[in-house]
Amino acid sequence: MRLHFLGTGAGVPGKERNVSSLVLKQMNKNGDIWLFDCGEATQHQILHTSIKPRRIKKVFITHLHGDHIFGLPGFLGSRSFQGGTEPLTVYGPAGIEEYITTSLRLSRTYLKYDLKIVEVSDGNIFEEEDFTISVKQLDHVIPSFGYRLEERERPGRLNAEKLKESGIQPGPLYKKLKNGETIEWAGEWINGKDFIEEPVKGKIIAVAGDTRKCGAAIELAYEADLFIHEATFGSENEEMAYDYYHSTSVQAAEIAKEAGAKLLWLTHISSRYSGGSENDLLLQARTIFPNSFIAQDLLETDLEK
Amino acid sequence: MRLHFLGTGAGVPGKERNVSSLVLKQMNKNGDIWLFDCGEATQHQILHTSIKPRRIKKVFITHLHGDHIFGLPGFLGSRSFQGGTEPLTVYGPAGIEEYITTSLRLSRTYLKYDLKIVEVSDGNIFEEEDFTISVKQLDHVIPSFGYRLEERERPGRLNAEKLKESGIQPGPLYKKLKNGETIEWAGEWINGKDFIEEPVKGKIIAVAGDTRKCGAAIELAYEADLFIHEATFGSENEEMAYDYYHSTSVQAAEIAKEAGAKLLWLTHISSRYSGGSENDLLLQARTIFPNSFIAQDLLETDLEK
Repeated sequence: MRLHFLGTGAGVPGKERNVSSLVLKQMNKNGDIWLFDCGEATQHQILHTSIKPRRIKKVFITHLHGDHIFGLPGFLGSRSFQGGTEPLTVYGPAGIEEYITTSLRLSRTYLKYDLKIVEVSDGNIFEEEDFTISVKQLDHVIPSFGYRLEERERPGRLNAEKLKESGIQPGPLYKKLKNGETIEWAGEWINGKDFIEEPVKGKIIAVAGDTRKCGAAIELAYEADLFIHEATFGSENEEMAYDYYHSTSVQAAEIAKEAGAKLLWLTHISSRYSGGSENDLLLQARTIFPNSFIAQDLLETDLEK
Repeated sequence: MRLHFLGTGAGVPGKERNVSSLVLKQMNKNGDIWLFDCGEATQHQILHTSIKPRRIKKVFITHLHGDHIFGLPGFLGSRSFQGGTEPLTVYGPAGIEEYITTSLRLSRTYLKYDLKIVEVSDGNIFEEEDFTISVKQLDHVIPSFGYRLEERERPGRLNAEKLKESGIQPGPLYKKLKNGETIEWAGEWINGKDFIEEPVKGKIIAVAGDTRKCGAAIELAYEADLFIHEATFGSENEEMAYDYYHSTSVQAAEIAKEAGAKLLWLTHISSRYSGGSENDLLLQARTIFPNSFIAQDLLETDLEK
């Protein structure tokens, strides 16, 4: 899996940072992409990447502020225009369905794929092919949610080297061994389970919407391998952050630390931090949670640092 | 007055051309700006110009296809966020009000200025301070309109040079003369009207929405000083243009010629014309109407060429 930021600014688009959007890539063996928030011109940002809109199969909207949704009708339409035919599901707060259907109806945008819209609320749990997705309401001026993705444990791989050392050569029997069956080989009983490695623990990814520092965010990020949280302000503007229902980078770091997360990415950076001053936000966060990083538009990275 | 193209592409945004939008500047002595269509990321294009969103006082939407309206909610919100307090009027086809009000309501976008929305239909005439604006329905797959702006005749200027030659020195009397009054000077009666130049004929500007070649477009552009018409295709794709309710550059030129327009700007160029091939569209148009030009994103130009 990989993380690719599309827009990392707050409120209104600026020259350095577009409004909110990011994707997670390689969410299954088909290479599905999941999109989180879709501010205006998200599809324009995608033009500067190798992302194929038709590979985006799920869209998660954290809340309905314009800087998180105004790119959605255009993205949905262009995905169809550019040949997307596979179904797409959009998850978002109450109102997302009216927003999408009204925009598509009035603009006469006809989609060549099935669009499913799921309005979420606090505590929802969705069981998907490889993930359990849970929804937590955070603390913002309007309902704003975080999405916690828990990848299922994957079966351990068959240790082919160990099998070869035991003299068992690759062939159709390997499949049976991989399934944990017992086979006969050169007069001996071989138990597949002895050659299967430990199951691979699934990744936990938590993506928070706009929020004040809150307990729900700590639950959201509990032991997450990757935690993405807003940092609209620096700690010198903590009062302003509170008044506007946002967080400072220090508060984001405190949440990551309290949650026992492994990696924190800060995004949704106010345009007042630019030309280098955004590094202050990062340095402040690292005093609390050293494995913190600050997002940039179009930055792509692994889940581990 | 000046013309500034913001987005000159068709259908979906591309790397070379954004979706539709243009502005006319200096529409009155206060330097008001009028915006025509507002495709997604129009506000992003504005970031690359000196245009102040708060100076945009009127928005004209030609039709409700997404590539002409999906930037509107974001533009309206950012105009407020960035300190715009003066009223704004949006003109557009039936449905524009529902689109705007639904988008603003669901995204909780509160404007700090008065927003007036006027739904237009064929034949509407609006008398504004310096312009008569008339609306003509064109021939597109959904209702699509053109806007014809006829600037009022402006009074001729007072010929100060001629006054000085007559020995009348600058002073408070000039104002009376400019108003056409008769004054006494050095024992003689001086009639202001003798020193006022001919009235200045107003400009005629016609901005067409997406359309097939049609008679209404000729009426729209009748003797226009500036005519802006779509040229989605080249003449080799005339059939496709017809099927998709669009025009070729040659058809746009034919309309300009039949209307007796003075200057034609071609815009709404399909992304199939790029890397130089868009010049073919221009050359085709010039065989019919020599004073044709092809738009580019962010190109700014005078009304005369």
